[in-house]
Amino acid sequence: MDQLELIRELARENASRIVFLILDGLGGIPVTGQGKTELELAHRPHLDRLATEGVTGLLDPIAPGITPGSGPSHLALFGYDPVRYNIGRGVLEALGIDFPLEHGDVAIRINFCTVDQDGVITDRRAGRISTEKCRTLAAELDTIQVPGARIFVRPVKEHRAALVLRAPGLGSALNDTDPQLEGRKPNALSPGDEPSKKTVEITNRFLDQARRVLGPRHPANFLLLRGFAAFHRYPGFAELYKLKAAAIAQYPMYKGLARMLGMEILPVGEKLPHLLDVLEARFQEFTFFYVHVKKTDSAGEDGDWARKREVIEAVDGLIPRLVALQPEVLVVTGDHSTPAGLKSHSWHPLPALIWSRTARPDEVTEFTERACARGGLGRLPSTSLMPLALAHALKLEKFGA
Amino acid sequence: MDQLELIRELARENASRIVFLILDGLGGIPVTGQGKTELELAHRPHLDRLATEGVTGLLDPIAPGITPGSGPSHLALFGYDPVRYNIGRGVLEALGIDFPLEHGDVAIRINFCTVDQDGVITDRRAGRISTEKCRTLAAELDTIQVPGARIFVRPVKEHRAALVLRAPGLGSALNDTDPQLEGRKPNALSPGDEPSKKTVEITNRFLDQARRVLGPRHPANFLLLRGFAAFHRYPGFAELYKLKAAAIAQYPMYKGLARMLGMEILPVGEKLPHLLDVLEARFQEFTFFYVHVKKTDSAGEDGDWARKREVIEAVDGLIPRLVALQPEVLVVTGDHSTPAGLKSHSWHPLPALIWSRTARPDEVTEFTERACARGGLGRLPSTSLMPLALAHALKLEKFGA
Repeated sequence: MDQLELIRELARENASRIVFLILDGLGGIPVTGQGKTELELAHRPHLDRLATEGVTGLLDPIAPGITPGSGPSHLALFGYDPVRYNIGRGVLEALGIDFPLEHGDVAIRINFCTVDQDGVITDRRAGRISTEKCRTLAAELDTIQVPGARIFVRPVKEHRAALVLRAPGLGSALNDTDPQLEGRKPNALSPGDEPSKKTVEITNRFLDQARRVLGPRHPANFLLLRGFAAFHRYPGFAELYKLKAAAIAQYPMYKGLARMLGMEILPVGEKLPHLLDVLEARFQEFTFFYVHVKKTDSAGEDGDWARKREVIEAVDGLIPRLVALQPEVLVVTGDHSTPAGLKSHSWHPLPALIWSRTARPDEVTEFTERACARGGLGRLPSTSLMPLALAHALKLEKFGA
Repeated sequence: MDQLELIRELARENASRIVFLILDGLGGIPVTGQGKTELELAHRPHLDRLATEGVTGLLDPIAPGITPGSGPSHLALFGYDPVRYNIGRGVLEALGIDFPLEHGDVAIRINFCTVDQDGVITDRRAGRISTEKCRTLAAELDTIQVPGARIFVRPVKEHRAALVLRAPGLGSALNDTDPQLEGRKPNALSPGDEPSKKTVEITNRFLDQARRVLGPRHPANFLLLRGFAAFHRYPGFAELYKLKAAAIAQYPMYKGLARMLGMEILPVGEKLPHLLDVLEARFQEFTFFYVHVKKTDSAGEDGDWARKREVIEAVDGLIPRLVALQPEVLVVTGDHSTPAGLKSHSWHPLPALIWSRTARPDEVTEFTERACARGGLGRLPSTSLMPLALAHALKLEKFGA
């Protein structure tokens, strides 16, 4: 029996509220010349108070040493085995634009590109066409018809779009047509298993027509496909955890993923305090809130440790409003590390805290990577966080007599 | 999907170098009257520097409470699930003398013994005959022929030798003929499964002839068999990790195991500094080095805590040469604990450190069992070390989008 099945059996409903405050890319490594991580450098009196009163530890999103993408790392936070419930790039892309995927759909990421008269790729991003232009092209491609299948093309942003194929029995074991290099022709599609032969056939028919439609549209005169992925219905928060769950997130992919797990997506403005405005306004309506802060990750990806520190400090400043709501359980952590020093996601485990009346505090009085390494939670997989949160909210029955 | 499969998918090649410095039997328990372990008693300024600058923790070779043999504990260090990839005594013995095992071979350890005229064992070690004598006897036994099989007998040391059976479809679910007690006859062989029936038949034919050959050779007038084990090809370091790996080890078993995993075995002298001489001389040729120090374990097995401390101090003295090579990742740990106070392998977890530019230092400033218990790695299975080392060398791709 895997963890989800066990939790599903033990979960019971009560009125207690759980808040997951997720700082994307939170973890870091010491900033060159500073000897401290972005989080350690930040002024964070309120987070430190939560760490002092609660219990802390380190989380591995996938396993020690494994750097996760945003999809798997979020699934782990929400209690789903991220290897078993792996989620492909195409599906993430479609979720990110709120496309209503159905069970069995195959989703693919489109990059508009420029090819020369021989079909050789000269620009993998078609000069980063405008989002406006992307919308026009996607609308034209969306009219393409292939017998026996439904085809959806939706714009994403600049040169990026999403393709969804709907037909019975489609496989998704297909290579990318994107060769990742300019000066080459797109790769031919080759099926990795029996059901994928049908997907290859449908996709090739789509590509033939797309070539004709886009031909005159230089610089976006063709497209590349990446990340073929089938969408499977996931068991959701209501079914598994008996939670009425809401997501307060400002970026599309996170909203899409939350919707896939049965959360209601609450509209929210673009600024950081807007997250709290919505949480306060809707606090009585749900028993679980996923609050997502994106800009810690963006700053890390940019290698901008000072900006990452500022975002952390801004989040720290919002904590009193959160505490004033008196959730039964407040979790603060990230989905993965994004050290400014590496300018990318990394494998380093995440600091995490659980603040609750039922927590057993440890000796940790600072919310930092280094301090949390001594915390009472020890080092755990991220998938343990959801059962712990449910437990602290007294939402799990005893196992066995 | 198990860890190895995941790592195999994510591993990529780059020029960064990883060094595993393995002090066999490193971990200890407090020495009676001293209140400190051998490692704590040692003067180890350079190891402490690495611990300060790197990240530390405790490793369990198999699982908490399980005392490992050298084979499983090394497999775990190298990232292989030591229970799934269990390696039998016979195979370890054959690897230890560098016998070129082939997939499907069954290897067995031989002990020459003395029996009386009724076949009752009077000395399980045949008076510990000389290695010279062992060689002569093994050469004679090696001429034995059994229809449908190839039989190899090789000397090991004193009363110990190795037997290898090669034939299609051999099982290895056989009991030892060694009853572990004198005053008894050897046990009859009994097959534990269908394929092992053939192995019993071949072995009995071998034993009949061996009885005739050895009859006049008192005190080594018969032999006992232990540890029937089949050899399976293991996926190696190049295939799994995309590493060009070398082993610098002075004892046969460790070389045999490293060769089995696809490492190149580098010739090395007998003294401790010779390990570094070879590392320095060959450092440009490989991307992974396994450097094995045996004498910490031997001293522990002898209950000689002062000698174990001396070996640790001698290794500490070599660290500056190692650091001067500037490996991207340096790991220092052991394969298992061998506390002088127990005179044997033990289950106690091992102190470990990872020293790398990409490490996130913890608060630990000493390389001891006690200090590492507070380290940023927490307590991990030894199998996590290899993925972590690869990650710190930036040799693992991101998992998922």
